[in-house]
Amino acid sequence: QSIYEKLGKTTRTVDVEIDTQIEQLRETKQRYENILALARSYSNHFSNLMQTQRLLSDQFLELKQKSFLLCDEFSYNAETQRVLVQNGEILLNALNYFISTLNTLCTKTIEDTIITIRLYETARLEYDACRTELELLSQGSHMNEKQDAFQKYKEKYEHLKSDVSIKLKFLDENQTKVMKKQLLLFHNAIAAYFSGNKEALDATMKQFNLKLIS
Amino acid sequence: QSIYEKLGKTTRTVDVEIDTQIEQLRETKQRYENILALARSYSNHFSNLMQTQRLLSDQFLELKQKSFLLCDEFSYNAETQRVLVQNGEILLNALNYFISTLNTLCTKTIEDTIITIRLYETARLEYDACRTELELLSQGSHMNEKQDAFQKYKEKYEHLKSDVSIKLKFLDENQTKVMKKQLLLFHNAIAAYFSGNKEALDATMKQFNLKLIS
Repeated sequence: QSIYEKLGKTTRTVDVEIDTQIEQLRETKQRYENILALARSYSNHFSNLMQTQRLLSDQFLELKQKSFLLCDEFSYNAETQRVLVQNGEILLNALNYFISTLNTLCTKTIEDTIITIRLYETARLEYDACRTELELLSQGSHMNEKQDAFQKYKEKYEHLKSDVSIKLKFLDENQTKVMKKQLLLFHNAIAAYFSGNKEALDATMKQFNLKLIS
Repeated sequence: QSIYEKLGKTTRTVDVEIDTQIEQLRETKQRYENILALARSYSNHFSNLMQTQRLLSDQFLELKQKSFLLCDEFSYNAETQRVLVQNGEILLNALNYFISTLNTLCTKTIEDTIITIRLYETARLEYDACRTELELLSQGSHMNEKQDAFQKYKEKYEHLKSDVSIKLKFLDENQTKVMKKQLLLFHNAIAAYFSGNKEALDATMKQFNLKLIS
């Protein structure tokens, strides 16, 4: 059936509304996966930077002990890097929470609906294949048998279509809620960190029930 | 001579003051090279982070167009990452200036004095070797010849010692001046960037005559 459809030799049952929603969900999933991959490299690069800040702070501290003339300069540099690492730990927790939640959204929540969609698409193919056969037969001995089978495929297809429709609706609400919260966390934690606002950073973590220290 | 010295079979001419200064310079060079290496990874990790921020900002902008319900969330996230990249470019210029100046200090300025130190150390070895020989000869036909050679080695040694002494003095002043300025730049640029203070970041760049855009 699917080959006939590609060749344009047969008709397919189309539900414009649901098919559009499915298309949109697949696009959304793709985009969220991109965001997830970028958030992961964000976290990696940031964590590498923190490691360098840690080493640099130690090195500045050591030089502070050894260098009488540049004692102050090494001292405030060591302190600044130390504070950046300290706040960085908090931001890293926020980033990792964002990543973990987005990962669950993509690989569990959305994936669950995608699996139902695949079942629905198979049922649609089977239903259309049976419908095409029935149209070609037009009259004959196996007519009744075929019509029973057709009825069963039709029911299965419609049942799965309704499943998909319900799941899409719930997913859309749920997904929007989760992303709204996560995007707010991501933004507020980053904005607080990069404005050196320790209080705002702590407040953001508290707001999202995240631990301050990993 | 250097083998005899290691075996403790001969004496060596020691100038405690200058030898201590040489030892300190070698330690300082080692420490500055560590700082240089760390500053280079700082700049690399930071630049990788900026690249991710750039991609993330674009991705958020794209999602802003596509997602009606999360339009605001994607919008402010895109904007924040964009501003971070914009300020990051300036910080990166400051970091690279710090790296380039420290590199010159280690590989040119300090290295120049180190080369003179090596010549001085060779002259000291030759001078001590000649002195030892002269002591062993005590009396003999080649005494005058040897004493002429000894005189020449002695002069060469003392000339180089004075060279080293002068270079060490100038290097110390110069090195302290350069590092004082660089450590201030490094600190102020980083502190301004990580407190989201664009004005202070611009002012720091101006203070050190650095371009805002690379």
